[in-house]
Amino acid sequence: MADSETPIRFGIMGCAEIARKVSRAIAIAPNSTLYAIASRSIDKARQFAVRNNLSEEVKLYGDYNDLLDDPCVDAVYMPLPTSLHLKWAVLAAQNGKHLLLEKPSALHVKELDKILEACESNGLQFMDGSMWYHHPRTAKMKDFLSNLELFGRIKAIHSSSSFTGTSQFLENNIRVKPDLDALGALGDAGWYCIGAILWSMNKKLPTTVTALPAITRNLAGVILSCSASLYWDEGKTVATFYCSLISHETMDLAVCGSNGTLHVEDFIIPYEESSAAFSFTSGAKFVDLHIGWNVKPQEVQVACKLPQEAMMIQEFSRLVKGIKISRLRPDSKWASTTRSTQLVLDAVKNSIEIGFKPVQM
Amino acid sequence: MADSETPIRFGIMGCAEIARKVSRAIAIAPNSTLYAIASRSIDKARQFAVRNNLSEEVKLYGDYNDLLDDPCVDAVYMPLPTSLHLKWAVLAAQNGKHLLLEKPSALHVKELDKILEACESNGLQFMDGSMWYHHPRTAKMKDFLSNLELFGRIKAIHSSSSFTGTSQFLENNIRVKPDLDALGALGDAGWYCIGAILWSMNKKLPTTVTALPAITRNLAGVILSCSASLYWDEGKTVATFYCSLISHETMDLAVCGSNGTLHVEDFIIPYEESSAAFSFTSGAKFVDLHIGWNVKPQEVQVACKLPQEAMMIQEFSRLVKGIKISRLRPDSKWASTTRSTQLVLDAVKNSIEIGFKPVQM
Repeated sequence: MADSETPIRFGIMGCAEIARKVSRAIAIAPNSTLYAIASRSIDKARQFAVRNNLSEEVKLYGDYNDLLDDPCVDAVYMPLPTSLHLKWAVLAAQNGKHLLLEKPSALHVKELDKILEACESNGLQFMDGSMWYHHPRTAKMKDFLSNLELFGRIKAIHSSSSFTGTSQFLENNIRVKPDLDALGALGDAGWYCIGAILWSMNKKLPTTVTALPAITRNLAGVILSCSASLYWDEGKTVATFYCSLISHETMDLAVCGSNGTLHVEDFIIPYEESSAAFSFTSGAKFVDLHIGWNVKPQEVQVACKLPQEAMMIQEFSRLVKGIKISRLRPDSKWASTTRSTQLVLDAVKNSIEIGFKPVQM
Repeated sequence: MADSETPIRFGIMGCAEIARKVSRAIAIAPNSTLYAIASRSIDKARQFAVRNNLSEEVKLYGDYNDLLDDPCVDAVYMPLPTSLHLKWAVLAAQNGKHLLLEKPSALHVKELDKILEACESNGLQFMDGSMWYHHPRTAKMKDFLSNLELFGRIKAIHSSSSFTGTSQFLENNIRVKPDLDALGALGDAGWYCIGAILWSMNKKLPTTVTALPAITRNLAGVILSCSASLYWDEGKTVATFYCSLISHETMDLAVCGSNGTLHVEDFIIPYEESSAAFSFTSGAKFVDLHIGWNVKPQEVQVACKLPQEAMMIQEFSRLVKGIKISRLRPDSKWASTTRSTQLVLDAVKNSIEIGFKPVQM
């Protein structure tokens, strides 16, 4: 029988690079344990276990179905290529596994809805693998953005997420293969920009989404970089973002309100684990003659006892425990966050496909 | 007769608020002197002189024509409302006055071309009043952006320029009156964003300019905030900007290259006069497991002996002296910078007018 002291037992489906980070997070989080690893071959699973110094107690499976059949697995972390999410996420849910699904959650919202429906009808917790929501800095930034006096009403948002794929990455990585991750830079880096913009807007969907006529694709047609704008009629807020797999590393979020401004340049992965910063300016005015400002940006440092990915695991496991032990309902907040992000992502993709015209939401 | 020791004698046409800052700059710059002030009434000119502790030697005129008729005036600084630029700038040039023209330079490029033609045919120096180009920080930033190893090829640019107009400003200021400054936020704050983007691109005009369907106007139809995107086919660079008279103070420029990133948040008016900073990151990679970065942004502080507006005056006066004393030709670099900015501004305006469709340049 489950009790409140028993950690949530994770099974990892797919030995992607990101699974290394998450397996460490599962080990660090106080309420979870890594129970099993599955790959398409037992050799790959074994290599992953050796490379990451996993305990010999971690079960190794050479077939995803074996992991899903194991009744001891409470939850699945699934870093499979996006095109495989629908099949395996639904199967996982049908096997009663709570689901931590790597982003982008699905190729489009219809697929995601099937996944969410499978989780919901089986009483399972869903969450996507966006780690930054769980950093304590994120809550501090939200405090600032929610402060009507310091920040005011939200006016404009800009976000950027990019990294320089190596030539090997751009030729072989699943994130640039049309049959595996057809969403390319938009699904990978753009997911964070869209998420950050919606987070800034308290998840309110935009009225209009318009992709910018500025897009780079590889020979297979997968997006390597793109940009889009979002607009909210109510409040007349505008957001823009840039995402790219062929530009220098950026993780920018700049939010401008009527009374203040927030800037952060490492919102997805903080420069370091132990603490992270953002800066804000509030009530800025130019001094007489406009030869300077009355205030400078203030930096806020936020200490982080656990890495953000361990906080994500901790939160997910806390919710799973609530369901397992206290018979609580799954928290739909995370599914709703994922779904909003996917909806906007779909709208950007749609706008690109119809020639960069506005898409009403 | 002019000699190299004689300072350039400025006449200021129009007692706008910005003229206070520029009259101080003329006083500070070592090669210029404030010779005369003209307003539409002698009382206004007198008030301006008293308020700004001008020397009693500064001549006061109650008619712009009187200032233009004064043969001792070498150069005119003209902070008149944009709709008056064409008439008075051309008259100034016809009277042989070198021209420092406040931005936006004109309502559209056809007007600007008449002004530039009047200056050129009379052998006169032209420059617009964008001060930040003259700050030594700007040259340092350009060094970074020009460094192929540290920065690489330019990929994406975002700029933001905004301030919160008081209700008095939004009701009465010339910058929101359709008959005076019909370009509103685009001409005022947007001028800097466009300038910064073109500066980042070494003045190369974009292939396409597309205004974003996100615009705020006052009751008279003047733009209070807007956004646009620019795209360069060659190099596939994308830029976006946001400008507003109804948002908190921002002066952001973020430039992302293939190997590095630059951020500055006070590019138009530095936080303080004595020095200014920008930050850059180069060669950033995520450390193993993607739990941090290998490098953090580096801050570059640049000392400034003269305020940037005094450096603008000094540079303008140096060029005027070259013409007066050494019979050099006017330096067309500044006219060309202004014209590129105006062309893109016109394209944004055009895109807005045709329903946010792309405008090919």
